[in-house]
Amino acid sequence: MNWGSGGGFGTASQCGSITAACLAVNLVCDKKTAKKIVLDIFNWYEQTSLPTPISQKMANEKLFTVEKYKTNEIFTPTIANSPLCHISVERFCKANGVGSGSKERAERCARLTADISHFTAVQLNKHVESDYKQEYAMSAAATSCRECHAKGKEMDQGGWSRGKMDCQPCHSTDHINVSEGHYSGFEKK
Amino acid sequence: MNWGSGGGFGTASQCGSITAACLAVNLVCDKKTAKKIVLDIFNWYEQTSLPTPISQKMANEKLFTVEKYKTNEIFTPTIANSPLCHISVERFCKANGVGSGSKERAERCARLTADISHFTAVQLNKHVESDYKQEYAMSAAATSCRECHAKGKEMDQGGWSRGKMDCQPCHSTDHINVSEGHYSGFEKK
Repeated sequence: MNWGSGGGFGTASQCGSITAACLAVNLVCDKKTAKKIVLDIFNWYEQTSLPTPISQKMANEKLFTVEKYKTNEIFTPTIANSPLCHISVERFCKANGVGSGSKERAERCARLTADISHFTAVQLNKHVESDYKQEYAMSAAATSCRECHAKGKEMDQGGWSRGKMDCQPCHSTDHINVSEGHYSGFEKK
Repeated sequence: MNWGSGGGFGTASQCGSITAACLAVNLVCDKKTAKKIVLDIFNWYEQTSLPTPISQKMANEKLFTVEKYKTNEIFTPTIANSPLCHISVERFCKANGVGSGSKERAERCARLTADISHFTAVQLNKHVESDYKQEYAMSAAATSCRECHAKGKEMDQGGWSRGKMDCQPCHSTDHINVSEGHYSGFEKK
């Protein structure tokens, strides 16, 4: 999973911590359970303020099993609202006043990866103990947009698209030309 | 990699065919070579009209090793300009007048997956024969935007972001408020 770093060797597409966690889940779960845990991983990542206080404290006190820390300072955590690397990175960088090439950003992604590993292990243990129940719902935007833009919907209603990731970082949820039919482009954010 | 279907069990984030192909590359290559092939996979996917004539012909003549075809018709191929599932799917659905839940869309993704598997095998064989040379450059938009928005750039120039995926499907490349400083939001497309 080394290639997942920087959302695909720096492509900044899907966050590599998600990709690696989902892969691990799929290695040990049946498909039905894997689907529930994978969707929980995506939704948890989108909605959680990261890094968590646990990984921040562990880094601050140098309790991780790494030889060298990029920095042990405590960061302002951020909610990505997206599974994509470059959106997640941008929110963190702006909130902390650091560049995407900084040691702080790199250390933040390391802590975040520890967080998602921990979350995944906790969810897998829940599956071992009993039937796994999905815990995280998709975003309000995705829930709403999927009323028209999802698999199985009519083409003239927006059935040409699909997805469960949060729509709002890239799309406005206002359809400004609704009276003339659905607005198929992007509204300025 | 079953979880990669629909960009993460239907999340429609990164196309699962990319994720699976990159994983395979990383299993058999050293990091330096893997990086070159992985970036070629991302760029090739973004820029290639898919499904290719080869997979379309094979499906049309039922030459793949599957028992049942969803359909063997020839589709209008499309260029995704993005590694993301829902953008790739939308372009195909609109060009072919089919919904994201249609058998045509599902068959298209199957052919596309055959195409990326073939491309990856060809690139891996090139690596076996000699030192691998990267063949695909990132998009013109990403090349241009990275002059300010990349790792190591100044914060006030846009160094808060990073990435190599094509910017244009979501971002305008016009900075409408350049005179007042860089425009940090999204311009209507």
